[in-house]
Amino acid sequence: MKTILVLGAGRSSSSLIKYLLENDAKNNWEVVIADFSKELAREKAGKNERAKAIKLDVSNENQRQKEIQKSHIVISMLPARMHAVVAKDCVKFKKHMVTASYVSDEMKALDEDAKRAGVILMNEIGVDPGIDHMSAMKVLDEVREDGGKMLRFESFTGGLLAPESEKGNPWHYKFTWNPRNVVLAGQGSAVKFVQQGKYKYIPYHKLFRRTEFIEIEGYGKFEGYANRDSLRYRDVYNLQDIPTIYRGTLRRPGFCRAWDIFVQIGVTDDSYVMEGSEDMTCRDFFNSFLGYNPNDSVELKLRHYLHIDQDDPLWEMLIWLGIFSDKKVGLKNATPAQILQKILEDKWTLLPEDRDMIVMWHKFVYEVDGKPHDRESSMVVTGDDRTYTAMAKTVGLPVAIAAKMILNGKITTPGIQLPIKKEIYQPVLEELRTYGISFKEDFMN
Amino acid sequence: MKTILVLGAGRSSSSLIKYLLENDAKNNWEVVIADFSKELAREKAGKNERAKAIKLDVSNENQRQKEIQKSHIVISMLPARMHAVVAKDCVKFKKHMVTASYVSDEMKALDEDAKRAGVILMNEIGVDPGIDHMSAMKVLDEVREDGGKMLRFESFTGGLLAPESEKGNPWHYKFTWNPRNVVLAGQGSAVKFVQQGKYKYIPYHKLFRRTEFIEIEGYGKFEGYANRDSLRYRDVYNLQDIPTIYRGTLRRPGFCRAWDIFVQIGVTDDSYVMEGSEDMTCRDFFNSFLGYNPNDSVELKLRHYLHIDQDDPLWEMLIWLGIFSDKKVGLKNATPAQILQKILEDKWTLLPEDRDMIVMWHKFVYEVDGKPHDRESSMVVTGDDRTYTAMAKTVGLPVAIAAKMILNGKITTPGIQLPIKKEIYQPVLEELRTYGISFKEDFMN
Repeated sequence: MKTILVLGAGRSSSSLIKYLLENDAKNNWEVVIADFSKELAREKAGKNERAKAIKLDVSNENQRQKEIQKSHIVISMLPARMHAVVAKDCVKFKKHMVTASYVSDEMKALDEDAKRAGVILMNEIGVDPGIDHMSAMKVLDEVREDGGKMLRFESFTGGLLAPESEKGNPWHYKFTWNPRNVVLAGQGSAVKFVQQGKYKYIPYHKLFRRTEFIEIEGYGKFEGYANRDSLRYRDVYNLQDIPTIYRGTLRRPGFCRAWDIFVQIGVTDDSYVMEGSEDMTCRDFFNSFLGYNPNDSVELKLRHYLHIDQDDPLWEMLIWLGIFSDKKVGLKNATPAQILQKILEDKWTLLPEDRDMIVMWHKFVYEVDGKPHDRESSMVVTGDDRTYTAMAKTVGLPVAIAAKMILNGKITTPGIQLPIKKEIYQPVLEELRTYGISFKEDFMN
Repeated sequence: MKTILVLGAGRSSSSLIKYLLENDAKNNWEVVIADFSKELAREKAGKNERAKAIKLDVSNENQRQKEIQKSHIVISMLPARMHAVVAKDCVKFKKHMVTASYVSDEMKALDEDAKRAGVILMNEIGVDPGIDHMSAMKVLDEVREDGGKMLRFESFTGGLLAPESEKGNPWHYKFTWNPRNVVLAGQGSAVKFVQQGKYKYIPYHKLFRRTEFIEIEGYGKFEGYANRDSLRYRDVYNLQDIPTIYRGTLRRPGFCRAWDIFVQIGVTDDSYVMEGSEDMTCRDFFNSFLGYNPNDSVELKLRHYLHIDQDDPLWEMLIWLGIFSDKKVGLKNATPAQILQKILEDKWTLLPEDRDMIVMWHKFVYEVDGKPHDRESSMVVTGDDRTYTAMAKTVGLPVAIAAKMILNGKITTPGIQLPIKKEIYQPVLEELRTYGISFKEDFMN
């Protein structure tokens, strides 16, 4: 019998744990579900005999190491900053580990030790990063096998609402994941990418006006804004000389133009605390960013400042959010970004009946023997309900499958791993397909 | 005989040293001019018998302390970060000191020690900060003496070109001081000020579109954009409860709207290094911030991106700068801000015949016995030539006068001082008037 230790039983672990519990008998697994809340762990374990729920405070080194020592593999669904601590223990006690998060510098530093210890540290095998790596590498490897030379690679992912949950919502959007990341998206430094061999830069205050449209058959139109990290993928995907590479985030059309209003007036700023935020209404908050004039309404000042026509659909989007209401925000010593998030959560929190949707889209332009080719690959996954969301499925299932493959000896190379090799991505993508997570590949040309 | 040690004989010291050398005989002063370049020090000392030029490396503690010990007062015209080091020595050897710079935290920390040692550390007595403090406090004290209650205080300063040097220059501007500060102006955090008791915030990317016009009789119209630090002056000027306080920087009308083009496309960013900057032409540089399209010109892409009409005067301003030229920039590993500065220096460097101009303008709105009043106070100083610039005069003369007053026992309070007390600002402003640095005060109402 093999013991799988799952660290973290929160929302993102639901599909992962479901998979493990559905497959534990036939694989002879014991599944230990550890969380700071034993209640939450117990709930996820259900009545499965092979599942064990325990309370674990990961900052308690003794208890953490004891549980890791008892296991054969560790799956960390903890906040990303905790992975390296767990990974160090895993190397020490020679236990394999799987996470869905980006490889941090601290994680990277463990590569040599992990190799020496024969320990596999599999990372970035969830969704963005994860399924994007696997589905892109599949096509990129096919192009290489055909002797093709990549000219352009674009890749977009978005966490959105299932079409029926978009109804009546002019943003066609709600928070389906960490709201803070959505509010701060694109901040920190200018976006940088390569187009036709030329470096291109977009400052944050122009990011949401430099979008592009894509269309996915059966799901309609989306718009994408650029991610900050496109260039990193040249190395990850072995595309060092590619003339154009661009990664982005998908929203429904209209979102970015309206979001840009927030960027322009300055309410997404997280760098300073606003005076008197605890007594502020939504209306006061927005007024703080507009000129003083006691005779003009906040509405007119905003329209005039940003040249918004009265019949512009984005005006309806702002009204719908209630940004001009006299409701108190009620956050003490808060930054503009924190206050904006609070206001948005009023309207952008998922209702019990809402279902989410993950959309991924890749474009590959390449040439074989001087002849141009153009392929697209896209995936749309909708959530089953509030527990088995599209996000939980696309993050949890590849993690679970990777853990299984490691335990079954199908993945054997030790050290820091990403799912970019055929022997990993092929079986994972194949099994994901049986769970409705599949890519539609089109040869456009 | 009293010895005055002047540290730094650069451009900003010319009027200061001239004053000291014109007044040394009658005051029985010896003036020691110390600079890293003995040549420069010697040039400033001229043939004056009471002046001594020495080479001094301020980072050489031994030599620095030796010279400070030999003096009665030290005037630091060094880069601002060096002042605290010198001030520490001054406290140690009980020597008074004068600087034209903002009080840094390191400087502030010396207050107690300076008081105990009976040492005066006079700061912020140049121009912005300096003459602005003195001229504002003069009126503010008068308002207080009249039993007035301040409702609004606005203060603008600008380092500009004398009218005849503006000719043919559509920006009506050249670098008359540190170019880097001009390129980075307004960056770092959102602008914050108080208007009618309400905090107002302006993000950097809107700063140059939220200007206001002012007019000074005989000199025409100016426009001002907000400084980041308005609120600090509530404490400095003892205006804690003032409903409106606003400080800004003056330019000629049209400047800010055109400068905003640079802000919008992102070329003022100093936070990252551009790839291949050494081989870049001006045209390449600007193209890096525009979308890729081989069939459109850089000019058209920029116009379209920022909605610039063909007949908009700001287009002429951009053309005049040569931003679309094929001239190589020639800076290695440079940030956008550094490259922009290099391009601007081509056109914005003072010619031998150019003269600069310092403009300062204050507005005071207050009430006495419920009756509203409105006063303005303005100063315009033009440079004599490239050596005795308006900047050198307005920085150096108040510093020199303060040093004289300390040596003559007219200023006696030890510790960190600003020129905000009547016994200081009154005689300084009076003497400045004899040098053509004077304020025109108008009672508007």
